[in-house]
Amino acid sequence: MEWEFKEICIIGLGLIGGSFALNLRLKGFPGKITAVDINPEAIEKGLELEVIDSGSIKHSMAESADLVVLATPVGAYEPVLKQLKPHLNGSQVVSDLGSVKGKLVYRCEELLADTAPFVGGHPIAGTEKSGVESAVPDLFVGAKFIVTPTENTDPKALEKVKRLWKQLGSEVIEMAPYHHDRVFAAVSHLPHVVAYSIVSAIDDLSEQVNTNLFEFTGGGFRDFTRIAMSDPIMWRDICLANRENLLNSIKSFKSALEKVEKLIEEGNGEGLKEFFEKAREKRKLVK
Amino acid sequence: MEWEFKEICIIGLGLIGGSFALNLRLKGFPGKITAVDINPEAIEKGLELEVIDSGSIKHSMAESADLVVLATPVGAYEPVLKQLKPHLNGSQVVSDLGSVKGKLVYRCEELLADTAPFVGGHPIAGTEKSGVESAVPDLFVGAKFIVTPTENTDPKALEKVKRLWKQLGSEVIEMAPYHHDRVFAAVSHLPHVVAYSIVSAIDDLSEQVNTNLFEFTGGGFRDFTRIAMSDPIMWRDICLANRENLLNSIKSFKSALEKVEKLIEEGNGEGLKEFFEKAREKRKLVK
Repeated sequence: MEWEFKEICIIGLGLIGGSFALNLRLKGFPGKITAVDINPEAIEKGLELEVIDSGSIKHSMAESADLVVLATPVGAYEPVLKQLKPHLNGSQVVSDLGSVKGKLVYRCEELLADTAPFVGGHPIAGTEKSGVESAVPDLFVGAKFIVTPTENTDPKALEKVKRLWKQLGSEVIEMAPYHHDRVFAAVSHLPHVVAYSIVSAIDDLSEQVNTNLFEFTGGGFRDFTRIAMSDPIMWRDICLANRENLLNSIKSFKSALEKVEKLIEEGNGEGLKEFFEKAREKRKLVK
Repeated sequence: MEWEFKEICIIGLGLIGGSFALNLRLKGFPGKITAVDINPEAIEKGLELEVIDSGSIKHSMAESADLVVLATPVGAYEPVLKQLKPHLNGSQVVSDLGSVKGKLVYRCEELLADTAPFVGGHPIAGTEKSGVESAVPDLFVGAKFIVTPTENTDPKALEKVKRLWKQLGSEVIEMAPYHHDRVFAAVSHLPHVVAYSIVSAIDDLSEQVNTNLFEFTGGGFRDFTRIAMSDPIMWRDICLANRENLLNSIKSFKSALEKVEKLIEEGNGEGLKEFFEKAREKRKLVK
């Protein structure tokens, strides 16, 4: 297997950046893998776990790379790209692994103008854990990888990034950046906000009922709220960066919830059964 | 190990009733296990799978039992007890495995008055599947079993039922019936309603975004909405029987969700981070 890149520099060595490095290794990527992280401990761990060859807290690390991949929370992209820019010399492609695309992709293009081609990417994979020590083998195998080219995207850079993710075992799908944000506001960002909210409600209700309700949760609740263990900074940034679409998804969700609420208030058994049956049929579509 | 009962009759041979039978077998219960179900196929499957010794569509099956356990949707308790009553002869204890207690327990006591002692029970275990063919080995091992005695409960019958569930490996906890319903409205009934609602919202949003959003869900969404595969009739009955507490839980949840919604609208990053951090800390309390 021939690989497109010779040296890949990952900016932000957390769960996703670390899993990217680990899976490059596991798939036999023969080149060098480096990382930049503002937290020196992340770099130390990455070296210790041998998922990276070199690392630094300085962006100059990216100078010798031919692919630079942003894997920080999306709110850090702007300062990161500003620090990165002086170290780009025309030989790098820049890509990312963030959960928000839309105008952020255009902003990245703007910040990198005349310096490096940018290819927005989003692997549909992850866990609720954090840190390079939680990197997951085969995390991207069989998972979708969304690339979000724009009218400005360099076709060669796009092909190289797509090829890389196919080599990691992902199913690569092209999507327009703004469309991406509408889709993932619904299927990913909304469920996270709902999971955090339900945990918060159970906390409030614990006081009302005068019982530590968290002691009485079963397996359903555990699975249901697992994603509320996700990194708060990552999710703060996603909520802010995809604000309008997320608010729209919350609106749709509230309207569905209020439909059930009304059926319960009215004691409408037939309506409840229909609502639940329809949702169950739809849920069966999830692979 | 000595067992309290010699013949156990399960009314409603679905996932929970079937798992109860299967786990009695696996723990070496030496007595007879019988079942009543309005659906003859359920009885056939139970016999075929050898989780029951005999079964019938008629409640006369319960005549020779010394323990009768209701495992139907809670909405069926009233007609079931009315059909069961002529077949009770003073030698049976009646118990149940339903998710709602509160006034339902008092209603069961009333319906069985002078015929059989009633002991309300609720195993905190289950899956989103349905039917005796989905019965799960060791489903109750290490799980909580809530018994909800009232001022009318026969102490001997209560002790026998508690002992039986300890023999199945459960942690038996006593709780007042009305308190039970406040607790489980929050930790179980609310999450189910939310899961069904989010699937319904994703369906509505699919039309808005003009994309089958169910194709783009990741592992988080899958876990998050697994409980929306649960039996619609069971959940219709729970929603109706625990209406007031559930409406109160929905109210608390909506208020938490609206807090996040407002923070997103305002672009309040610090507030979002705090909200998510607090929820994450609370979620860590779930074992």
